[in-house]
Amino acid sequence: MKRYAFFISDGTGITAETLGNSLLSQFESIDFERVTFPYIDSEEKAEAVVEEINKAQIESGQTAIVIDTVVDKNIRKVIDQANAFKVDIFATFLKPLERELGEKSSYTVGKSHQSALSDSYIARMDAINYALDNDDGARTRYYDEADIILVGVSRSGKTPSCLYMAMQFGIKAANYPLTEDDMEELTLPDCLKDRKEKLFGLTIDPDRLSAIRNERRANSRYASLKQCYHEVDEVEMLFERNNIPYLTTTDASVEEISTRIMAAAKLQRRLN
Amino acid sequence: MKRYAFFISDGTGITAETLGNSLLSQFESIDFERVTFPYIDSEEKAEAVVEEINKAQIESGQTAIVIDTVVDKNIRKVIDQANAFKVDIFATFLKPLERELGEKSSYTVGKSHQSALSDSYIARMDAINYALDNDDGARTRYYDEADIILVGVSRSGKTPSCLYMAMQFGIKAANYPLTEDDMEELTLPDCLKDRKEKLFGLTIDPDRLSAIRNERRANSRYASLKQCYHEVDEVEMLFERNNIPYLTTTDASVEEISTRIMAAAKLQRRLN
Repeated sequence: MKRYAFFISDGTGITAETLGNSLLSQFESIDFERVTFPYIDSEEKAEAVVEEINKAQIESGQTAIVIDTVVDKNIRKVIDQANAFKVDIFATFLKPLERELGEKSSYTVGKSHQSALSDSYIARMDAINYALDNDDGARTRYYDEADIILVGVSRSGKTPSCLYMAMQFGIKAANYPLTEDDMEELTLPDCLKDRKEKLFGLTIDPDRLSAIRNERRANSRYASLKQCYHEVDEVEMLFERNNIPYLTTTDASVEEISTRIMAAAKLQRRLN
Repeated sequence: MKRYAFFISDGTGITAETLGNSLLSQFESIDFERVTFPYIDSEEKAEAVVEEINKAQIESGQTAIVIDTVVDKNIRKVIDQANAFKVDIFATFLKPLERELGEKSSYTVGKSHQSALSDSYIARMDAINYALDNDDGARTRYYDEADIILVGVSRSGKTPSCLYMAMQFGIKAANYPLTEDDMEELTLPDCLKDRKEKLFGLTIDPDRLSAIRNERRANSRYASLKQCYHEVDEVEMLFERNNIPYLTTTDASVEEISTRIMAAAKLQRRLN
């Protein structure tokens, strides 16, 4: 059974998508066809969207689900005309919130996203640049600026986690790949020794690591099961011996790894 | 007036934060103190959260706002005991959706986020690696694999946009910095000439560009207003002359730039 789900917004559509996907994932047996319409900021654009929704309903023989975060009243009225089941986030929650907060909400188009000129924007750009410049042990002399330094074997998930923490939370995250030399001696390289309080370890199931490495360099020693078991063993011993907190990235999405690191390392987000 | 807002989740907390920030941003005059509690997956953890919420209420003299996406019924019951105004996303929307879809939703902890082993996860990792490897013109021989190639002057927002598109949508985005030589001749470099249909331009207000460049290299020729005006002028002429679609990144957040590129270039997301 196929159902259309439309995410409609006068801005980026990210709020509607995020909430919509959370809700729809609770219905496992239904195959949703998801379509996002961002920047629906005029009645004309809304009319075109309504046409698409009605077409989808006829095509699939099922009422479409509409999840929208449009704030403008006239545009909302147009969308309401679609033949669809509507999950209306703002209408549902803003009125009660207005009563609770004793204040009218600002029904202005696009208000729900940060401006480029805000402090948040600069903090985020700084953090992204920091993650890029201090990736994979490329530079170690700016580790004093780091909020956190991720350590682990190659392909354990360090780089995407650093980028995600920068993008989502404005956290300055560096990362350093531990090599066989470091691990065999069970000692930390000099550039990390003085920053022990900033270190956070990532580990991963060796079978999974081997699968990931094989995607990059098939049938190499680097990707072999034996090598992966060896490296993971050693790196966990190194973490234990140096009291470095760590977590496993197996079966975890980048969001999960990043938010778990934030919680475990007690880092506060720098963005709203 | 200060108000506490708590985002509570049994998963990463990202859905609760995204929706919560969207709702709260509609109340401009209120200074919200935002606190996220991710991974609240036991009644014990929920009880600790309730204590924090009640403390916040006493401290601020204001009822706290609670926005939660916890699915487990027993954990929800604990959170309900907090002295707070609750925006209850799942309770509000899942019941009506169940009726509309004719199916019970799966109230399982953590179900709302993708698994690491899904196709989505691999597509995302691939896209992030692609963006990193093909950043800033570093490599051009894999442009055939690109979904899109961003072009523009240095610091116009190419790199963060590529990373965001990779992370959020699984899109493979390369980027190439146009140099003065390219621009003076108003011709595209050879590596771009054959991929015109994949090119997308970014431009930016010269004053803003100068401010951004000054953050990196203060008082350089590179950051000077004169140089920025010159480069922006030339790059826009180059875009026009070669029929490259482009948009301005001034005043736009990374989300906005990325979703606008997606819409303008008619790119479909590769992730759910």
